[in-house]
Amino acid sequence: MKGVLEGEESVTLDLLRHKMAEFAKERDWEQFHSPRNLLLALVGEVGELSEIFQWKGEVPKGLPDWGEEEKEHLGEELSDVLLYLVRLSDICGIDLGKAALRKIELNALKYPAGPCKCSSKKHKNNNNGKKNNDSEG
Amino acid sequence: MKGVLEGEESVTLDLLRHKMAEFAKERDWEQFHSPRNLLLALVGEVGELSEIFQWKGEVPKGLPDWGEEEKEHLGEELSDVLLYLVRLSDICGIDLGKAALRKIELNALKYPAGPCKCSSKKHKNNNNGKKNNDSEG
Amino acid sequence: MKGVLEGEESVTLDLLRHKMAEFAKERDWEQFHSPRNLLLALVGEVGELSEIFQWKGEVPKGLPDWGEEEKEHLGEELSDVLLYLVRLSDICGIDLGKAALRKIELNALKYPAGPCKCSSKKHKNNNNGKKNNDSEG
Amino acid sequence: MKGVLEGEESVTLDLLRHKMAEFAKERDWEQFHSPRNLLLALVGEVGELSEIFQWKGEVPKGLPDWGEEEKEHLGEELSDVLLYLVRLSDICGIDLGKAALRKIELNALKYPAGPCKCSSKKHKNNNNGKKNNDSEG
Repeated sequence: MKGVLEGEESVTLDLLRHKMAEFAKERDWEQFHSPRNLLLALVGEVGELSEIFQWKGEVPKGLPDWGEEEKEHLGEELSDVLLYLVRLSDICGIDLGKAALRKIELNALKYPAGPCKCSSKKHKNNNNGKKNNDSEG
Repeated sequence: MKGVLEGEESVTLDLLRHKMAEFAKERDWEQFHSPRNLLLALVGEVGELSEIFQWKGEVPKGLPDWGEEEKEHLGEELSDVLLYLVRLSDICGIDLGKAALRKIELNALKYPAGPCKCSSKKHKNNNNGKKNNDSEG
Repeated sequence: MKGVLEGEESVTLDLLRHKMAEFAKERDWEQFHSPRNLLLALVGEVGELSEIFQWKGEVPKGLPDWGEEEKEHLGEELSDVLLYLVRLSDICGIDLGKAALRKIELNALKYPAGPCKCSSKKHKNNNNGKKNNDSEG
Repeated sequence: MKGVLEGEESVTLDLLRHKMAEFAKERDWEQFHSPRNLLLALVGEVGELSEIFQWKGEVPKGLPDWGEEEKEHLGEELSDVLLYLVRLSDICGIDLGKAALRKIELNALKYPAGPCKCSSKKHKNNNNGKKNNDSEG
């Protein structure tokens, strides 16, 4: 298993997709990997990710006060969410990498950058209870 | 905008991380991107992903009955989850690609593959109400 | 502790609110019960609730094939979600019972009942990928 | 419509359960209310609840800086979560009020109150990355 050694900067969504598909096949788990089963599994992992942050109050960027063990645990939960997301996309026939690049471009059209920083009103406006559904690029 | 043209099979987590960081910087949104803000934004996107599936009952793999517009919408919501996940990992100082490869290896140790398919009891056992927290590689 | 004996049909949201407030005060936990801490705790419990259903495929009403232990576990997870929701509402100064009755009335205005069953198109329409954000009364 | 006038302090889970069942029946929506459909609808509402809080950073108890409209919106999202939770419990054959009272008692056994405030280590311990799954009564 050369996974960790193969250069993490080049980890593609496609590599993860292949590994997940192979993993399921080798264990005869394909039968369980229906779209809604995987979606609920994803929700379960998001719950575990939230539990890590639940009693902490605001947490500064970079997690300066967290120990190594805790950061490792966080990495595992973030990965669990990612791996189910990759698997769910695959089972639904969605090219996640392609979709993500396209979404970034759509977001760039919706929130143009510029000297007026107009787009920051996105966040300001959120204070009035309106919804904002887009990831920000 | 060459994003969509640059070969989707090679979309790396690192590319998405860079694009998200640049996007936030250009819009002066870094101030909003604290870990818990991004986590809640992620939960919001998971909610939107769930809404797509909520009234459908069981959905077959490959979504054979879905129209193009609906699949495109699904791709956008899957992407929103991914993009916030990538951004959250970055802000927390976690190398998501590295963590994901490591998690797959941990899962492989925990659920060995083999002719006995013993590991499929993972799913069977789940029927007794016990928890199972791991993504399956 | 007469809780279980006091007539479950009359369990009010206000009773649960009082019990939760008392519970936190007795343990000096009020310091941890900020709105976003409680919200993330709620998300964590929704994750655990989802895990119960994640590998099951479609599940019939009434859960005819579930054992007693599993139903008990389900009841605990449903309760965890409820108790954090009640506590979050209280900490935010929202009268949850009043808000819920009002929401049902708003839903009744939005989806009028009638012989034409027009409102069932709510669910049908959902198939085209549009969002539907309302609980249904 | 006497809902709002009938004394909110006495809003029982059973009243909400009856109203939800009647609402679904009048609209011929019972066909859509399978356990996993309702669970995904619940997840969708939790996502909308999270969106209200997502860009705010830490929020003080009582939401002193929020406007009336925003609080009303919050009450609606909290209610949506509650109403789907009540409906999901009903469809699963779980007595939610009874289960909630029982869970509070289980929590009281697990986290005894007392002068030593020992139980506050629950939250402290959470900092080491371990999981804590229980709502706190």
